[in-house]
Amino acid sequence: MRRGEVPPMDPERDALCVNAIRALAMDAVEQARSGHPGMPMGMADAAYVLWRYFMRHNPRNPLWPNRDRFVLSAGHGSMLLYALLHLSGYDMPMEEIRRFRQWGSATPGHPEYDPHRGVEVTTGPLGQGFGVGVGMALAARMLAERFNRPGFPVVDHFVYVIASDGDMMEGISHEAASLAGHWGLGNLIVLYDDNEVSIDGPTDLAFTEDVAARFRAYGWQVLEVDGHDRAAVAQALAEAQRAGDRPTLIVCHTHLAYGSPHKQDKAEAHGAPLGAEEVRRTKERLGWPTEPPFHVPEAVYAHMRALVDLGAGWEAEWRATFARYTEAHPDLAAEWERWWRGELPEGWEEAVPIFPPSADGMATRAASGKVLNALARVIPHLVGGSADLMESTQTYLHGFPPIRRGDFSGRNIHFGVREHAMGAILNGMSLYGPWRVYGGTFLVFSDYMRPAIRLAALMRRPVIYVFTHDSIAVGEDGPTHQPVEHLAALRAIPNLWVIRPADANETAEAWKAALRRTDGPVALILTRQKVPVLDRAGEGWGPAEGLHRGAYILAEAGRLPPALVLIATGSEVALAVEARRVLEAEGIPTRVVSMPCWEIFEAQPEDYRRSVLPPGIPRLAVEAGVPDGWFRYAEAVVGLERFGASAPYPEVYRRLGFTVERVVDAARRLLGRS
Amino acid sequence: MRRGEVPPMDPERDALCVNAIRALAMDAVEQARSGHPGMPMGMADAAYVLWRYFMRHNPRNPLWPNRDRFVLSAGHGSMLLYALLHLSGYDMPMEEIRRFRQWGSATPGHPEYDPHRGVEVTTGPLGQGFGVGVGMALAARMLAERFNRPGFPVVDHFVYVIASDGDMMEGISHEAASLAGHWGLGNLIVLYDDNEVSIDGPTDLAFTEDVAARFRAYGWQVLEVDGHDRAAVAQALAEAQRAGDRPTLIVCHTHLAYGSPHKQDKAEAHGAPLGAEEVRRTKERLGWPTEPPFHVPEAVYAHMRALVDLGAGWEAEWRATFARYTEAHPDLAAEWERWWRGELPEGWEEAVPIFPPSADGMATRAASGKVLNALARVIPHLVGGSADLMESTQTYLHGFPPIRRGDFSGRNIHFGVREHAMGAILNGMSLYGPWRVYGGTFLVFSDYMRPAIRLAALMRRPVIYVFTHDSIAVGEDGPTHQPVEHLAALRAIPNLWVIRPADANETAEAWKAALRRTDGPVALILTRQKVPVLDRAGEGWGPAEGLHRGAYILAEAGRLPPALVLIATGSEVALAVEARRVLEAEGIPTRVVSMPCWEIFEAQPEDYRRSVLPPGIPRLAVEAGVPDGWFRYAEAVVGLERFGASAPYPEVYRRLGFTVERVVDAARRLLGRS
Repeated sequence: MRRGEVPPMDPERDALCVNAIRALAMDAVEQARSGHPGMPMGMADAAYVLWRYFMRHNPRNPLWPNRDRFVLSAGHGSMLLYALLHLSGYDMPMEEIRRFRQWGSATPGHPEYDPHRGVEVTTGPLGQGFGVGVGMALAARMLAERFNRPGFPVVDHFVYVIASDGDMMEGISHEAASLAGHWGLGNLIVLYDDNEVSIDGPTDLAFTEDVAARFRAYGWQVLEVDGHDRAAVAQALAEAQRAGDRPTLIVCHTHLAYGSPHKQDKAEAHGAPLGAEEVRRTKERLGWPTEPPFHVPEAVYAHMRALVDLGAGWEAEWRATFARYTEAHPDLAAEWERWWRGELPEGWEEAVPIFPPSADGMATRAASGKVLNALARVIPHLVGGSADLMESTQTYLHGFPPIRRGDFSGRNIHFGVREHAMGAILNGMSLYGPWRVYGGTFLVFSDYMRPAIRLAALMRRPVIYVFTHDSIAVGEDGPTHQPVEHLAALRAIPNLWVIRPADANETAEAWKAALRRTDGPVALILTRQKVPVLDRAGEGWGPAEGLHRGAYILAEAGRLPPALVLIATGSEVALAVEARRVLEAEGIPTRVVSMPCWEIFEAQPEDYRRSVLPPGIPRLAVEAGVPDGWFRYAEAVVGLERFGASAPYPEVYRRLGFTVERVVDAARRLLGRS
Repeated sequence: MRRGEVPPMDPERDALCVNAIRALAMDAVEQARSGHPGMPMGMADAAYVLWRYFMRHNPRNPLWPNRDRFVLSAGHGSMLLYALLHLSGYDMPMEEIRRFRQWGSATPGHPEYDPHRGVEVTTGPLGQGFGVGVGMALAARMLAERFNRPGFPVVDHFVYVIASDGDMMEGISHEAASLAGHWGLGNLIVLYDDNEVSIDGPTDLAFTEDVAARFRAYGWQVLEVDGHDRAAVAQALAEAQRAGDRPTLIVCHTHLAYGSPHKQDKAEAHGAPLGAEEVRRTKERLGWPTEPPFHVPEAVYAHMRALVDLGAGWEAEWRATFARYTEAHPDLAAEWERWWRGELPEGWEEAVPIFPPSADGMATRAASGKVLNALARVIPHLVGGSADLMESTQTYLHGFPPIRRGDFSGRNIHFGVREHAMGAILNGMSLYGPWRVYGGTFLVFSDYMRPAIRLAALMRRPVIYVFTHDSIAVGEDGPTHQPVEHLAALRAIPNLWVIRPADANETAEAWKAALRRTDGPVALILTRQKVPVLDRAGEGWGPAEGLHRGAYILAEAGRLPPALVLIATGSEVALAVEARRVLEAEGIPTRVVSMPCWEIFEAQPEDYRRSVLPPGIPRLAVEAGVPDGWFRYAEAVVGLERFGASAPYPEVYRRLGFTVERVVDAARRLLGRS
């Protein structure tokens, strides 16, 4: 780490800049007739000190790898971020500020990931940004461990988060804070906007815990300041930078809607415009011209846009260091460049094992573990972990140490029983840049991390989820641990690929598909129990590479055209294959389609889709879960419209109707032959 | 509160009883070849002391209203609970212990709500039981406030929770603990099984926070004991009972798989059988007969089943008090009985307002607020709150105070920004008995509380969720706050009714349906924006009571049979009605079906379902969300397969395709007329 000193400040111009932020926030919300003015007005002082005097960033190159990261976890205060970006000289022109919350503007209601403009992450759902900040700080520490060399601190920046009361109440912030303390992420500094007001009124309606004591219990350094005392904020930031191996929480006591004569500290200033008259009075009180709106004095631009030159200088300095680094450590420098370009090493796919056919078979989670370990050996920036289920989810990278306080050289991340923080931390690590990340838990617990998965999908970040124990075949652990609705619920999330491979070789292809994808997250859905490794060549069946088209003909009907198409995923593919044998023996030419991923299939050309699922031929889908989405593809579904039950899995599977007989019966009924 | 003293104990027989619990846990897991022996063996001492000497419960009447509640939040240790139930004389015969984790047994892998046997709640997904315990304690405090009178403490019991490291890591436990401290729930006592081992190994891999300090920060009393020192546990329990208005955490330092020569304190003892040989050696070390399995000395039964008489005595004493209470306060006693029978007051439905037709309309959340307030005035045991969105979700009961530390007479619960804890607390309150409970947040944040919703559905508890801001029509707040996949994701949960009313009068009916339901949860899905109050009588359309059949003919085609059926829900019903006008004008006889609830519709007789959706007539569904489930009912869907966007809502709604033109076009295409 570096710095730790209070830079010289300019109180008069600082006051002007801070009021410019307040005025912009008021005006933009007023013009939009919608938004949250109170938070930007309250945190303007602290955020300004951070941006102008402490953050090292380059407004003209928001992608500079060693920039300090900034996360506005309290995303409802988006105007604070937009004002800072605008005033600092980012690509955030005044016309976009004027179009706050309008269709297609760069200034949506809550910040939306827009890295070229300096918006590092989508925030708004409370607590998520906090977890993302932890993920970015972890990613930075791990990257520093890989690439920094004596005299070459190519990664030495900080991660700053502004968080609100709401962030602090959400459980995910507790989970993530506990991990940040555990890992000793001294590069993480959180400014907590402690304004004692939430939407319903004073926070003491629901929130009287001692936040500072709680964070100390997590192992954090905690500082408290008057959030409107800019010198005190600066002192605290400097002290935070010196924290060493402890993350720092700076409790900023602030006034919501600071400066508003009638609405300061009032809940009504949280999420609604102040009103024209109150804006006028507030500006008067702040000594600000009441007209025109969106007024920014030149002195403010001059003072804030000094960051353009400062930022260029910081980056130039870093580039000079990096040039010397390239000479001293050419291999490392080349590796660095590859990672940041998002490239996988040439020939990486050759490392993926091919599994020989086996009737006894292999659980797809086991196949996944083998594939992942093979990939990890050739893809050094592939890292991940699980929520206390390393072995069950087969997500441990053997031969690599775990991440620990003081030693970030490892590649296995123990998230503990904290699925939600895992999701947000994976988002932060992915947003950070060079890492390819995955996280594992039981499919049923995807529910615990759904808000984070949704954000990965919304931001189109290529996070990989390893969800095992994927059906009632979990068996004895019973309905609390048996997913039945989760496939449907995950498929409902736009941009998320949900891939449920049928056997070990489809699992290998699924990992390839997941790693090739760069524009969104992928959920791998894997069995606990063994499933046959299909003898594709021996039977003349379709190869597992068909996975890359989302659905493919696995076993063609004995004579053409088929009278029936059976569609299945995962462990039910083997069941469909068995049912096909019976139906063929009854003289019903039956095609089996393996359909591991709807989203990929939907992206195929119509010709291909019609060749796999020809119109006019009856289709029956088979999946051990709720049938909800399947009627898009099939007239009938062998599914499950109830929760599971506790018993050995073959019995659960059979009793809940996943038998050859039931599939064959359903097929006969569909064809009018029962 | 009462008690607070250490009862006389019997060290020799106590040791025998504790080892009986350990032996049963080992044997049952061994026989099932599946399960978690380590936790029951580690917590046997503390749990035994609690059950035998502190809890007031009646094994022969597990429904006694004033019993102490017991929640095994660490549900994987289910054999601890089953052993305690069996040995204490509950309806848990040895044959059920022998059938641990078998189909249809009373001893599933994780405890499943089974009130007649003393299983108070389904647990297993970590952290949920902790939140349920908080909910039960709150429910008890509120009930005491309503019914206790000087000299008549008809509610004066405790709520006990056993929680594990995993529970403590999950964010929901932080949220719920913060609330318990905030409310000062001195009737809540949590025994924390601090065994320093989780599935992946020692907890210090991921969990080094100071749990005791954290709970003190939440306002709890924290005590620490050697969890194998039964006298110390008893002292701590007594002290906890004297805590007054603070909940207590008793940190029990224990050894996982206590007594096992090779597996004590090892992660491998967490979730797998010890193995026959290790079981034998453990029994030897504990001084237990190695054969036969499932051996229980008579002395153990004699000592533990003293609880049958003790319990009968406690209940008799309480009944005597209650008899005197009935004489002194006959109205209150009658009210008490009504509440516990689950009855709603006669004529309650007459309180529900009828809304006059209005083209300008009313948001369904606003209608819901009016209905809820009208209902609250006639249903005194209807209570609830929201996750810091009282006004937005219109869930505030006007004229009633909020719940506060020291004053539980109110009916409005401020959960803070803690959706997940809200969900679990609602479960606990519902499980407790007499309360009818609801909780509100934005639909998009249903994701934060999904694991708790799932448990309500699994337990079939009639919790009501008020989910507002139900589509892209949220507008300016943008995609982070606009649900698009949530209707599909909630409908996927078995047993959950998802009701999306079309207008104010359907909203009134939806509340009636929700309150009539006693065998499962109901999610009300409500608009932020105004929607017309349909002029049903004026237009000759179907009345809103049709909601109680799940779907109904709102507007019949101008001539019969219809050429097309438009199916819609919520705010899209008005759109379908508009489209119908255009289509009818084009000579296409069009029926509009309002389909607020799939689950209710599926439960109707086939005749009815076919009368509403006649086979052979093309159907087009219209809903502002992902189309995933709709292909069950319709050949084509006007839906949304992407995230939303930030802009004023009429623009978002229009740009994303919810226009009369698009619906009409889709209809024409479906009918081959485009």
